[in-house]
Amino acid sequence: MQIRPATDADRDAIWKIFHEIVAASDTYAFDPKMSREEALAYWFRADTRTYVAEKNGRVVGTYILKPNQLGSGSHVANAAFMVAPASERLGVGRRMAEHCLSEARRKGFRAIQFNFVVSTNTSAIHLWEQLGFKIVGTLPGAFRHPEKGYVDVYVMFRSLP
Amino acid sequence: MQIRPATDADRDAIWKIFHEIVAASDTYAFDPKMSREEALAYWFRADTRTYVAEKNGRVVGTYILKPNQLGSGSHVANAAFMVAPASERLGVGRRMAEHCLSEARRKGFRAIQFNFVVSTNTSAIHLWEQLGFKIVGTLPGAFRHPEKGYVDVYVMFRSLP
Repeated sequence: MQIRPATDADRDAIWKIFHEIVAASDTYAFDPKMSREEALAYWFRADTRTYVAEKNGRVVGTYILKPNQLGSGSHVANAAFMVAPASERLGVGRRMAEHCLSEARRKGFRAIQFNFVVSTNTSAIHLWEQLGFKIVGTLPGAFRHPEKGYVDVYVMFRSLP
Repeated sequence: MQIRPATDADRDAIWKIFHEIVAASDTYAFDPKMSREEALAYWFRADTRTYVAEKNGRVVGTYILKPNQLGSGSHVANAAFMVAPASERLGVGRRMAEHCLSEARRKGFRAIQFNFVVSTNTSAIHLWEQLGFKIVGTLPGAFRHPEKGYVDVYVMFRSLP
């Protein structure tokens, strides 16, 4: 598996993953009717670095890394990860997360924050905890899960010493 | 004091307040070099309701109310408040906050969340706590204060039953 900066040639593959994940509506608070154009504009914003994980020439995951706030909050990064549903449980998320920690350090960020980790997404939470993230906040009922109704959302944080 | 939806005629007054507050760099994580155009685009986004507090015909404060997340997170509102430095400690913030709670309820939001309350901004934190907000998260060193260095930031949350 190779992880590298995304190029324009990856846009179709990224949109395919994005669309599948957002349509499932069980991990991200995006508008499920978000268009291809809106999704790619968000994933390729000017302040955002976009990466893909490639395996046997196919894009199996993508992630973004950006400042979580501007100005006096820009030393804390934010990241978001998406793994193609067909490639789940193959370690793609972990590889991208490790790559992300190293990129964030390299770019001089002092910490990484996830603003919105849905509490039912236990495999992601388990991975973040293994990688040194801590739950630093709980947002009561902040996510409307398609099957479980209103569930809590975690804010997770990891310093990069 | 009257609180009402902002109009295009308020843009100059809003920019004046915004610019003063962002230049001080001690409460908000905006880029202090943010242009008038960028600031007003942010304050008047399509998904955002913008209000002003007016006293004797002068705009003395402004606030915005919007969904904090899209899709399955859009039942939680986010708000941001700015009081003209010359009108501080006159109850403008409290009046806007009460107005905001009532507007958020009226629009059907189930809760309000503040993502980034700088821990040294004790008068704001005191006001939010009086109005029923609770600190639900602490982001270690997430704000670089111009005098105090890296300080913690709170996530605050209030249900709207």
